[in-house]
Amino acid sequence: MATLPRIAITMGDPAGVGPELCLRLLRDERVLAACRPVVIGDAGVLRRVARQLGWPEPEPVFIRDLGAIEADAVEPGKVSAACGAAAYVYVLDAITEACAGRVDAIATGPINKESLHAAGIPFPGHTEILAEMTKAERSCMMLTSEVITCSLVTVHVGYREVPALLTRERVRDTIELTAAAVQRIRGRKPRLLVCGLNPHAGEHGLFGDREEERIIAPAISDARAAGIDVDGPLPPDTAFLPKYRTATDAYVCMYHDQGLIPLKALAFEEAVNVTLGLPIVRTSVDHGTAFDIAWKGVADVSSFVRAVQLAAKLVDRGEPGA
Amino acid sequence: MATLPRIAITMGDPAGVGPELCLRLLRDERVLAACRPVVIGDAGVLRRVARQLGWPEPEPVFIRDLGAIEADAVEPGKVSAACGAAAYVYVLDAITEACAGRVDAIATGPINKESLHAAGIPFPGHTEILAEMTKAERSCMMLTSEVITCSLVTVHVGYREVPALLTRERVRDTIELTAAAVQRIRGRKPRLLVCGLNPHAGEHGLFGDREEERIIAPAISDARAAGIDVDGPLPPDTAFLPKYRTATDAYVCMYHDQGLIPLKALAFEEAVNVTLGLPIVRTSVDHGTAFDIAWKGVADVSSFVRAVQLAAKLVDRGEPGA
Repeated sequence: MATLPRIAITMGDPAGVGPELCLRLLRDERVLAACRPVVIGDAGVLRRVARQLGWPEPEPVFIRDLGAIEADAVEPGKVSAACGAAAYVYVLDAITEACAGRVDAIATGPINKESLHAAGIPFPGHTEILAEMTKAERSCMMLTSEVITCSLVTVHVGYREVPALLTRERVRDTIELTAAAVQRIRGRKPRLLVCGLNPHAGEHGLFGDREEERIIAPAISDARAAGIDVDGPLPPDTAFLPKYRTATDAYVCMYHDQGLIPLKALAFEEAVNVTLGLPIVRTSVDHGTAFDIAWKGVADVSSFVRAVQLAAKLVDRGEPGA
Repeated sequence: MATLPRIAITMGDPAGVGPELCLRLLRDERVLAACRPVVIGDAGVLRRVARQLGWPEPEPVFIRDLGAIEADAVEPGKVSAACGAAAYVYVLDAITEACAGRVDAIATGPINKESLHAAGIPFPGHTEILAEMTKAERSCMMLTSEVITCSLVTVHVGYREVPALLTRERVRDTIELTAAAVQRIRGRKPRLLVCGLNPHAGEHGLFGDREEERIIAPAISDARAAGIDVDGPLPPDTAFLPKYRTATDAYVCMYHDQGLIPLKALAFEEAVNVTLGLPIVRTSVDHGTAFDIAWKGVADVSSFVRAVQLAAKLVDRGEPGA
C-alpha cells in the first residue's frame, strides 16, 4: 500500500478513561505504524487531561476538535448528560467522516450508557447508533481475540427480553456476518459453532420452549446451504471446552453474557469489539469508561491499540462491511 | 480416624459410561485410600461390561446388587425407559442407605435425563430427586474445582423460566449454603461473589427489570448481616476476569450456564458436583452418560475419582449437609 489507512478514533465519554487513552494512542508506535490516526473529540479536554497528568499536549494535526463540551465543566468519573451528549456527537461525526470516505475506518473509545441515557440519547451503545445512522439492514457485534471470538445475536437487552428477539433470520444473519468477517481476519474459510439458548441446548425439549429446534437449528441449516462451515446448536457450557475451542474460529452466541463470560474468562480484556454488517469498518475497545480510574493516567491502552490495529487490518484486507 | 468412611457409588444409567467407571473406581488406589466404596447397581451389568472389555470382574463384596434391570437387555448408548428406571432405583436405594446411616456419603454416577423422562420419573436430575426424597427445605447445586467454584440459584430449567424463580430467599439460601460448604472444603472463612442476572448487572436499571436491585442486592445484604463475606451483584462477564477470580472462593450464579460456562471453560471437566443443604453428603461426576463412548472402556474416570474423594473429605470434616 502506498499510504497507511486513515483511522478515526473517537474520544469517548470525556469523564472516562477515553481522553487519556487517546493521548497514549497518538504517541504509540504500534498505532503510528498501522495507520494515520485522527482523534475526534475535544482538544480542550485532551489538553486539560495532559496538563493534569504532566504529559505532553497532543499535536493539533492529530485532533478533529468538535468543541462539543466545555473542558473545565467536565468532572472526571461522573455520569453527566453533557458528557453523554458530547460522546454521542463524536460518534456521529466519525460516522459522517467515514461515510464520506474522509477516513477509512473508525475505532471508538468507551462511552457511558448512563450518561448517554441522561442526555436523552435513545441508543444503549455504539452498535445500535451505527446500525441506525448507516441504515444497515442487518448488523451484529463480534468480539475477537487471539484465543476466542464470539458474535452475539442479541446484545444490550435485559435477560428476559432475549427469547422474543431470537428469530431464524437474526440467527442466520449473525452466522453469515460472522463467517464473512472471520474469513477476512483469518484469510481462510472459518469454522463456526452456534450455542443453544437453554441449558444442555434444551436436551431435546426437556428444558425451554424448543428454541433450538424451532429457531437455531433451521438457521444453521440455512447457513450451511449457503456454504458456511457451521455446527450446533451445542450445549452452551460444553461448547467452550478446550476440545471445541481448538476446532472453532468463532462462536455465535444467543445473548450478551453467553459470549462475554467465556470471552472475558479466557481472553481477559484483550478482545476487540467489531460491528459487522455496516458499510464502514468499526472496531472498539473491549472495556467501559472505567470512571473509578478516570484521568489518573493508569488506564491500560492495550485494548484500544488492538482495536486500532484491527480496524487498519480490516481496511487493508479489502472491502469493509460484510 | 479408626476407619475410612463408607461411600455409596451409584452406577448411573446402565447404558452409559457409569458401569465401566465403577469398575475402574473399585480398582483405583486413590479411591481405596480415601474410603470403603460400595457400588449400588446391577452386578449383571457390571459383569457384562467387564467381560466385553476384557477387564477383571468386580468382587461381589464391593457391589450392592439391586437386580433392577436384565443385563442382556441393556443396549449401550441408547435412551431407554428401563435404564432410566434402574438408574433411579440405584439413587433411591443410596439415599435410603445414607439416611439410615449405613453409608456415610453418596457419589453418584451419570444419569440420562431423557431416559429418566422416558421412565416417567418426574425429576430432571439428581439434585431434585435428593431434595424431594430427603425433604430438604432448601438445597442447591455447587460445582467445585481447584480453579473455580460456582453455586447455582436455578439449575435445570429453560432459559425463560429463570427470572420467575429468582427470589430474595432463594438467592440468600444459595449464598448461605455455599458459604458453609466452602468453609468446610477450604477450612477457613470463604469470600463469595454474586453475579447479576442481566448484562452489566442491569447497569442501574437500563437493562432488565431491576432484578439486581429488587432481589439480588437485598439477598446479599441479608447474607452480610449473617456474617458472610460476600460481594455483588457484579456484571456477569467481568465477574470471571482473573482479578476477581483470584479473590473469590466461590461464585453464586443465577442460572445454569452463567456458572457452567466459565466453570467448563476454566476447569474443563475437572469439577465435582455437590448438592448442598441435604441431610446427607452427596457428590457427583461433572459429566453425563456419554452415550457416544459407552461400554468402550475409554471414558476418563478422573472426575468420578474426585467426586468420591470430595465425598470422603466432606464426611471427614465433620457434620454433613450445611
